[in-house]
Amino acid sequence: MTVRKSPRVGTPAGMRVLNQRAVLDRLRRDGPATRPQIAKDTGLSKPTVGQALLDLEQHGLVRPIGRTTAGPGRSAMVYEPNPAAGHVLGVDIGRQHIRVAVADLAGSVIARVDERNRCRSAGALVRTVRELAGRTVSDAGLAPDDLVVKVFGTPGVPDPGSRTLRHAPNLPGLERPGLLHDLQAELGPDLVVENDANLAAVGERAYGAARGVDAFVCVTVGTGIGMGIVVDGRLFRGAHGAAGEIGYLPYGEPSDVDEVTRGRLEAAAAAESVVALARDHGIATAKSARDVFALAKSGDPRALAAVRDEAERLAYVVASVAAVIDPELVVLGGGIGSNTLLQEPMEAALRRMTPLAPRVVAGELGDGAVLSGAIAMGLRSARELVFDRRGTITV
Amino acid sequence: MTVRKSPRVGTPAGMRVLNQRAVLDRLRRDGPATRPQIAKDTGLSKPTVGQALLDLEQHGLVRPIGRTTAGPGRSAMVYEPNPAAGHVLGVDIGRQHIRVAVADLAGSVIARVDERNRCRSAGALVRTVRELAGRTVSDAGLAPDDLVVKVFGTPGVPDPGSRTLRHAPNLPGLERPGLLHDLQAELGPDLVVENDANLAAVGERAYGAARGVDAFVCVTVGTGIGMGIVVDGRLFRGAHGAAGEIGYLPYGEPSDVDEVTRGRLEAAAAAESVVALARDHGIATAKSARDVFALAKSGDPRALAAVRDEAERLAYVVASVAAVIDPELVVLGGGIGSNTLLQEPMEAALRRMTPLAPRVVAGELGDGAVLSGAIAMGLRSARELVFDRRGTITV
Repeated sequence: MTVRKSPRVGTPAGMRVLNQRAVLDRLRRDGPATRPQIAKDTGLSKPTVGQALLDLEQHGLVRPIGRTTAGPGRSAMVYEPNPAAGHVLGVDIGRQHIRVAVADLAGSVIARVDERNRCRSAGALVRTVRELAGRTVSDAGLAPDDLVVKVFGTPGVPDPGSRTLRHAPNLPGLERPGLLHDLQAELGPDLVVENDANLAAVGERAYGAARGVDAFVCVTVGTGIGMGIVVDGRLFRGAHGAAGEIGYLPYGEPSDVDEVTRGRLEAAAAAESVVALARDHGIATAKSARDVFALAKSGDPRALAAVRDEAERLAYVVASVAAVIDPELVVLGGGIGSNTLLQEPMEAALRRMTPLAPRVVAGELGDGAVLSGAIAMGLRSARELVFDRRGTITV
Repeated sequence: MTVRKSPRVGTPAGMRVLNQRAVLDRLRRDGPATRPQIAKDTGLSKPTVGQALLDLEQHGLVRPIGRTTAGPGRSAMVYEPNPAAGHVLGVDIGRQHIRVAVADLAGSVIARVDERNRCRSAGALVRTVRELAGRTVSDAGLAPDDLVVKVFGTPGVPDPGSRTLRHAPNLPGLERPGLLHDLQAELGPDLVVENDANLAAVGERAYGAARGVDAFVCVTVGTGIGMGIVVDGRLFRGAHGAAGEIGYLPYGEPSDVDEVTRGRLEAAAAAESVVALARDHGIATAKSARDVFALAKSGDPRALAAVRDEAERLAYVVASVAAVIDPELVVLGGGIGSNTLLQEPMEAALRRMTPLAPRVVAGELGDGAVLSGAIAMGLRSARELVFDRRGTITV
């Protein structure tokens, strides 16, 4: 793809770019339309719109999809943004699974791969991710160059300075110095690495329980525990990118020396602790949090007691977050967090704990939230990039 | 003061207003200057600056303060913003004290009153505040109409809808429905009521430990406990104005039924609890947190142990805040929070609790932080208002 310098604003070529942008934005925002409709909506003249459509079609950014048939007058060509103008790769690197998807610019997922994460080192992880990404891209019938942006979600806090992930104790090797550099070397440029809980928040806002909400938090509870914060429609990252690292909330009494690495709240409320709570209540057979929730659903009173304990700990999280930032809405997501059995005991505990209890809803995207967020974030950049990088304009 | 509609942008009168604004901003930002200096700094012509200075002087917004003596050429008149162009009233309504100050537009406090708060009802409080405000204004040699803005700091969360303070259990009657309406009725319009911890943050940023810092939190520990959050240089208030109400952090075990009203962390870490901690360590004589800190300073090991316990609880607060919003800086303020004896044990406890420990410094304004913040916030509005309300422009 050729990258050229944009012509200057105020020149005829600059005007032509602005017109193309206005026409493309209209089509992206409000859907397919004819030349006269676009002229009406943008305030541009019909010939100007016609020229812009011609330019955009030539660059592969819009495409005709048919002619109007109803209504008076001549039939007119209907245009839409070309979904194939670019593609994004989304990757969710979790402790249990690695999930990869390729989507076109319309956001349709055209290939998806989901594998258990068996990597025991950073090297293995980088190789596996490259292999899975390659497979997904070829499943989609694409070449690596067709990817405009790649967004990776991982636990931990990406540190741009050292190109290393910090505070990611759950995945072996993930904190290795220079890991982000290695990923980029293997997977090429235009690669963004983002905290997975942040992506879950972006996903729930784009496609899930927080659609249209400009200020909320998304608490993700699964193998680990994290939170994405959205303020004024944008991710709030804090001074060092560690905002929302609620696994480090100082829950309970400090006793275990390992807690500073793992985080006291995470040790008390993530997946493993649900199994431990079940054991405390006399269930020796449950191997995973999923087992415990299944037992609880079947009415097992010991499993229900364990779920209540877990709900109490999540209420502690929500009460802490409410006391600090007073969010409008809390989305509870992740494999554990989105379980509906938690809702009632969590809200009851919350009301006992704080007069500032916010509205709490379950996430709608389950364990696909991070991947959806990676695609949503990738699409936002990709739509800009394909326009900025379109071929030379012939003036 | 006469309020007139501003002339439209693009008209000669509109240009004249813009020029006045540019000249006044220059003087406020960089201090006293002559006509040629202002012309150089603003890019305006000398005659234009001369006319703007004339207009501003006529409206009482700038004043000449003398002539240059050194340097070549004729001596020139030096101008500065007129500090007497307006005044602001700041009030800090605390459980122990009511503090009132009047400052001119340069921020110089010209009268100040500080009295113990003996009010036992909302009615008494409103009357007392009116009486103290009146006394301070007349001490300053001013009339009530000279006040351009009045800013009141109180515990609790002002609810603009019901004109009532919520979550303010520490002051008797402060949660009475319509209290904010009553204050306005007694003290006139242009009255702003703001959470005291928010004002402490504004104060420390304007005059104290957070000068020039755009993102930080100010944790205030005294009779109550609260926090002001500054993001991008502005107060962050949350969805219902309750951001920073950290008295409601779910500290320890839920046992006391009163906790939802008072807040579990506040019950554990505010002034009264320092006395209780000292009692636990065998000191029966301390009547106030001040007594406990005085004993600790003299080396009393029981008092030092109580201070260590308090430091541990404040470390819990800072660790919680860090896990949620990852601030660049924590300013620890208030009568208790700013005590330097806390610093070392607090930081040691913090390092044991979290790998996300932010930089923590003591507040520089002590128990004057809220009042300073009220003045600083009032000045920001007043400087705008005196310009917007200046007399008619003769074109």
